[in-house]
Amino acid sequence: MITFRRAQASDLPDIVAMLADDPLGAGREDASLPLAQGYVDAFNAIDADPNQLLAVAVEGGEVIGTLQVTFVAGLSRKGAWRGQIEAVRVAGHRRSGGIGRKMIEWAIDECRARGCGLVQLTTDRSRTDAHRFYESLGFTGSHLGYKKTL
Amino acid sequence: MITFRRAQASDLPDIVAMLADDPLGAGREDASLPLAQGYVDAFNAIDADPNQLLAVAVEGGEVIGTLQVTFVAGLSRKGAWRGQIEAVRVAGHRRSGGIGRKMIEWAIDECRARGCGLVQLTTDRSRTDAHRFYESLGFTGSHLGYKKTL
Repeated sequence: MITFRRAQASDLPDIVAMLADDPLGAGREDASLPLAQGYVDAFNAIDADPNQLLAVAVEGGEVIGTLQVTFVAGLSRKGAWRGQIEAVRVAGHRRSGGIGRKMIEWAIDECRARGCGLVQLTTDRSRTDAHRFYESLGFTGSHLGYKKTL
Repeated sequence: MITFRRAQASDLPDIVAMLADDPLGAGREDASLPLAQGYVDAFNAIDADPNQLLAVAVEGGEVIGTLQVTFVAGLSRKGAWRGQIEAVRVAGHRRSGGIGRKMIEWAIDECRARGCGLVQLTTDRSRTDAHRFYESLGFTGSHLGYKKTL
């Protein structure tokens, strides 16, 4: 029985551990405790923002997945709200069990409940498994995603 | 002399006209006056959100460009803020004059001033001119952008 809920501060070590346990995240994150202040500050900023939903998937009291949805107001498409999904991770020992699919379906439902006309996300071009996964969930890879580090 | 500033409600008809005057926007937007309530509601939501910056480029009192920056708090990359740029448009009669470049450079500066570690955007795969443009501004097309209409 997997449930989904808004993340609490006490979930933060588990969430950061999942971000770090990933081929791309390994070089970018630091899951050592106590967590770097940047993570705590970011959690507080997310938690205080009514247009942010940082969520966890929980089973038997264990955090087994995470994702973040940002609700973005925009003028395009006659003023449609968008839900943007980022930072999707499933705990290493629980991957390939359909949890990711349940998480994204839950996130899409949250976007629908908030009146979004569109759900969007980007995924690294090297994550070919993720491409098939999102296409199977009805997403279209219509865009290129550009990033610039500051 | 081009200046950039936060958009005001009185700029809304000019902004929507630019969104509609575009090969992809033409079928999605409605610039007829009075503007559809969805645009007004979206403007008010954007304007009330401290993590949103809807901006216009102005020259000689005329609105000649627009873009939107969403400042997104996130845990990834040790809690780095991201600036996300969307809905970039230059008025039809002013395209190819370097205004888009000035606008994006201004937006990047705004992201830097807000302490963002990353600037990101997506652009339709069919906009090949845009791909060259963003690459020339130092962006890397490392991601695929997926969308799902609700």
